[in-house]
Amino acid sequence: MDRALALAALGAGTTSPNPMVGALVLDQDGQLVGEGYHCRAGEPHAEVMALAQASGRARGGSLVVTLEPCCHQGRTPPCCDAVLAAGVARVVVAMADPDPRVAGGGIARLRDAGLEVVVGVAEPEAARLNQAFVHRVRSGRSWGLLKWAMSLDGRTALPNGESQWISGPMARQWVHRLRGRCDAVIVGGGTLRADDPLLTSRGARTPEPLRVVFSRSLDLPLAAKIFQDDSTAATLVAHGPQASRAAQERLDRLGIERLELSQCTPLGLLEGLAARGCNQVLWECGPTLAAAAVRQGCVQQVAAVIAPTLLGGEPARTPLGPLNLTRLAQAPQLTSLGWQRLGPDLLWLHGLDLGSAIGP
Amino acid sequence: MDRALALAALGAGTTSPNPMVGALVLDQDGQLVGEGYHCRAGEPHAEVMALAQASGRARGGSLVVTLEPCCHQGRTPPCCDAVLAAGVARVVVAMADPDPRVAGGGIARLRDAGLEVVVGVAEPEAARLNQAFVHRVRSGRSWGLLKWAMSLDGRTALPNGESQWISGPMARQWVHRLRGRCDAVIVGGGTLRADDPLLTSRGARTPEPLRVVFSRSLDLPLAAKIFQDDSTAATLVAHGPQASRAAQERLDRLGIERLELSQCTPLGLLEGLAARGCNQVLWECGPTLAAAAVRQGCVQQVAAVIAPTLLGGEPARTPLGPLNLTRLAQAPQLTSLGWQRLGPDLLWLHGLDLGSAIGP
Repeated sequence: MDRALALAALGAGTTSPNPMVGALVLDQDGQLVGEGYHCRAGEPHAEVMALAQASGRARGGSLVVTLEPCCHQGRTPPCCDAVLAAGVARVVVAMADPDPRVAGGGIARLRDAGLEVVVGVAEPEAARLNQAFVHRVRSGRSWGLLKWAMSLDGRTALPNGESQWISGPMARQWVHRLRGRCDAVIVGGGTLRADDPLLTSRGARTPEPLRVVFSRSLDLPLAAKIFQDDSTAATLVAHGPQASRAAQERLDRLGIERLELSQCTPLGLLEGLAARGCNQVLWECGPTLAAAAVRQGCVQQVAAVIAPTLLGGEPARTPLGPLNLTRLAQAPQLTSLGWQRLGPDLLWLHGLDLGSAIGP
Repeated sequence: MDRALALAALGAGTTSPNPMVGALVLDQDGQLVGEGYHCRAGEPHAEVMALAQASGRARGGSLVVTLEPCCHQGRTPPCCDAVLAAGVARVVVAMADPDPRVAGGGIARLRDAGLEVVVGVAEPEAARLNQAFVHRVRSGRSWGLLKWAMSLDGRTALPNGESQWISGPMARQWVHRLRGRCDAVIVGGGTLRADDPLLTSRGARTPEPLRVVFSRSLDLPLAAKIFQDDSTAATLVAHGPQASRAAQERLDRLGIERLELSQCTPLGLLEGLAARGCNQVLWECGPTLAAAAVRQGCVQQVAAVIAPTLLGGEPARTPLGPLNLTRLAQAPQLTSLGWQRLGPDLLWLHGLDLGSAIGP
């Protein structure tokens, strides 16, 4: 199963809205005769790849797969059909598929057909690998990672707004790789105005993640790079119903895609992006939007890059706007998921419980 | 020399204004026959302790010592006399004593007497061990360490001022041990009003470090714990010439010791504390005084304790007030000296060059 999980991880960043899945086929003697992983939505599932490679040697053997085989017709036929056709005797599954179209149906179908099915091998590892997919399927919202780079004294810019660059080249390369594992990168209008970022993975992901601008007012700098350069990555402007008709039409004339949200909140945005098949999104926004996302439980992980410098200054920008806390006991507690050096900088990654949503 | 340095370190926190010194005596055959370290100003020096333990076996042997033996009469007689009287043939010294009363004079005296003197063995380690002493002797100012505890988003309090406790019990115990290695702990009037801290090492150091309140206005909460409890630790109020006579007299009536500085600045304070024999001081102050200390080059190390929580809020207190930077390239660069976990918290320690002084 460890090998199947490693195969599955090869699909990181490109399988959405599907999960990452890896599969192995062992023949009757336990010899490895096939392996595969899901690479991209619409392309063959891992089980089908592995069984095709195994060909006739799968008969009477075992299939090891990181997620329950599907039993529904999607863009590709149900995997259960292929498993039954191959004549394997035993299927080992890390975890059931939380997708309501499957949700144990695949396992039941294989068992009904007389196959031995073992479920739950390395389940925590499999669930962690697909945490974003599982979160989206269960909650109807994309899984969010909030990232910032700050000085040791907690500043994300100088008092005059200068912020490029606080972290070093290695940290910035890490951000590009991080974007490569995300389906969308979200900024607000303020970040667009202050930093004019490109927001791509610099080729680490094909296609590039969707660039999302979240703007209540649609008062946006239309000369920004992400609106000018639409060849490398797609850009989407999400807004609420209160955005002026004139501003909407201005975007439409420029051919910039819009997503009108019924609720102009981080929660509304993540529901909209989940509906578009985004499993994992990256919040690369300023303090006000970041704090709203934390308050609404739209942040599942926090990645803080801390640069060994001091910026000082009360009016200087900080990572998070108001969380509306009145007592320290209310502060969301984070779980350290590890750290690493990125050149002179330190990356400290944390998990944040969904239960930590504070309020609007 | 490694063993001599380890012996020297046993004096950490209690030798000021003297340096930490460790010494070994080897007999003619290279056998260890004596060792000692300097424990407290006014008590025997390391060389004298080690030679006394070695007694007659020192004759013709070697003395290994982390700092040049002194050649002047202080509270104890010159160590050079004891070295010569013991009849050792060879002296191995890690580094010359920067104290202008010694400054190579001890080495010269031993060489003049015909002893073989080797200087510079493990010199970087010896200089690091006594960095505070060396800094004070060379600059005439105490060596400063600035410490703060903040949330992952760089806050040292909630917007409403609540700050106890952001870090966990292990981090707070570490702070007590840190105070135990310092000669003085400095706060401003604001910290006194906000936190009413005790500022002791909780017994890690005897005597407790001097508690210093730095106050321009002398508008101080006289009911604060550090003024009420003078049995565990001494308290000193440092102020400038512009403090009102009435406020000064109020302190005098309460028997609270004052230090009137000609310059009411961090620099003036560290000169005053150096003159009182403080080698190493700990800045435990709020953002305004901390930033002033950084700007004036009064901070040689920064210890940031980062707690895995989020506090948010633009008006919430941050570690550092204005550094008056207008470009990121002006920001002081720190040198990572290592990190450690303190329970759930992370301590990241940095060095800051004296050359990084920015201005008043």
